[in-house]
Amino acid sequence: MHRFKISELGNHVFWLKGPEREHLVRVLRLAVGDRIIGFDNTGAEYKAVVNKIEEQSVTCGILEQDYPEVEAVTRIYLAAGLSKGEKMEWVIQKGTELGMAGLIPLRTKRAVMKLEGSKAADRVERWQKISGEAAKQSHRVREPQIFSVTDWQGLKALLPPTTQWLIPYENEKTRTLSSVLKDFSSQEPIALIIGPEGGFEEGEVLWAQEHLNAQSISLGPRILRAETAALAALTLVLGHYGDLG
Amino acid sequence: MHRFKISELGNHVFWLKGPEREHLVRVLRLAVGDRIIGFDNTGAEYKAVVNKIEEQSVTCGILEQDYPEVEAVTRIYLAAGLSKGEKMEWVIQKGTELGMAGLIPLRTKRAVMKLEGSKAADRVERWQKISGEAAKQSHRVREPQIFSVTDWQGLKALLPPTTQWLIPYENEKTRTLSSVLKDFSSQEPIALIIGPEGGFEEGEVLWAQEHLNAQSISLGPRILRAETAALAALTLVLGHYGDLG
Repeated sequence: MHRFKISELGNHVFWLKGPEREHLVRVLRLAVGDRIIGFDNTGAEYKAVVNKIEEQSVTCGILEQDYPEVEAVTRIYLAAGLSKGEKMEWVIQKGTELGMAGLIPLRTKRAVMKLEGSKAADRVERWQKISGEAAKQSHRVREPQIFSVTDWQGLKALLPPTTQWLIPYENEKTRTLSSVLKDFSSQEPIALIIGPEGGFEEGEVLWAQEHLNAQSISLGPRILRAETAALAALTLVLGHYGDLG
Repeated sequence: MHRFKISELGNHVFWLKGPEREHLVRVLRLAVGDRIIGFDNTGAEYKAVVNKIEEQSVTCGILEQDYPEVEAVTRIYLAAGLSKGEKMEWVIQKGTELGMAGLIPLRTKRAVMKLEGSKAADRVERWQKISGEAAKQSHRVREPQIFSVTDWQGLKALLPPTTQWLIPYENEKTRTLSSVLKDFSSQEPIALIIGPEGGFEEGEVLWAQEHLNAQSISLGPRILRAETAALAALTLVLGHYGDLG
């Protein structure tokens, strides 16, 4: 059954507006009487039936409300150095499938891609759409948040102060992910800072260690591309807490 | 330093021929005196200097021989249902970076992509090149083997009889990867059978369970795309045995 993000929730009904309405009416061409599933980022899932299709909205009658255990219990964020081309989109798509809570696009020294002003805002909007699509396809009930593009100084303010920061770093030869996770709490958010192509300058890692208390960790002896490192680190942390089966 | 797959190993020297010679001479335009690194799929790595450039080969003098601990200790294979477009290349590239030992392209019932005869052979050759490039970029000393395209019946013969088979399956709700890995041996090969888009038919999973003693496992409650499942499963198994830091 097709899944939609609810625009407005009522009593025994919800409404789909804007792009969700368009998708239902014009793309999928659903009709009154068709069954759909709605979710509203609170963890709830609603089995519903299309009741009324109007110019600006679609009214759906709620048949059943569930709280499916589909979301990861651990809240894991990716702070991803801006990468070129499709890599950010891949990471956002697959990070959403895997179960991340959100992604912060991060300006770093060696990032080749520069994003400023309205261009940055447009790109974030597009990335949010990609995340939304991936959330639907993976049957999630929470769409990960794609934050505004930020720099190192802005990072700290975006997540709760109890956030536990990790920074996979190729110059870290000894500290393993599992040894660090032993001392982390699964009740507090975990944030993974991943470099762009070209990685981090040492000063950036030092800054993260000092200001975010970030633990640098090794992802093993093989060199990983930026997008591979992002997904591998995310997978390993989710797996550690039993969030991937 | 640039890395090359050795064509022929001698005493204190090795030769690069064919595509490796071409890459060194025409693409990278290296010259006599330049330093390179050679590897020969035995686990050895050779720091060398370009001694002589000829029509058919480049002679390199070996300065140092190492056995870097860069390969995964566990031998993990992916048997991947044929997926469309770039997905196979993506899995091969990133599977190589992560550390897989090889990949078997598998014909399955629901695979949309069909590969037969010379078209299959050409595609395997191309995939082998992709794997080789990824091995170099990740500083591996062993290039994963890309097997010929096979069907279910052919699978068993391609890997040692002691191979331990795993099949992530969306209808498997309870058996977790970690519970199965507890009973696996890290000394014997492990093979992950991943479906194409559309997944497996139940009969295929039953066949794998019966003929390969494959353990079906869950990768969690979220639906993963074929390529995401492949890399997530590979990452989790490598991580379990300490092969990713």
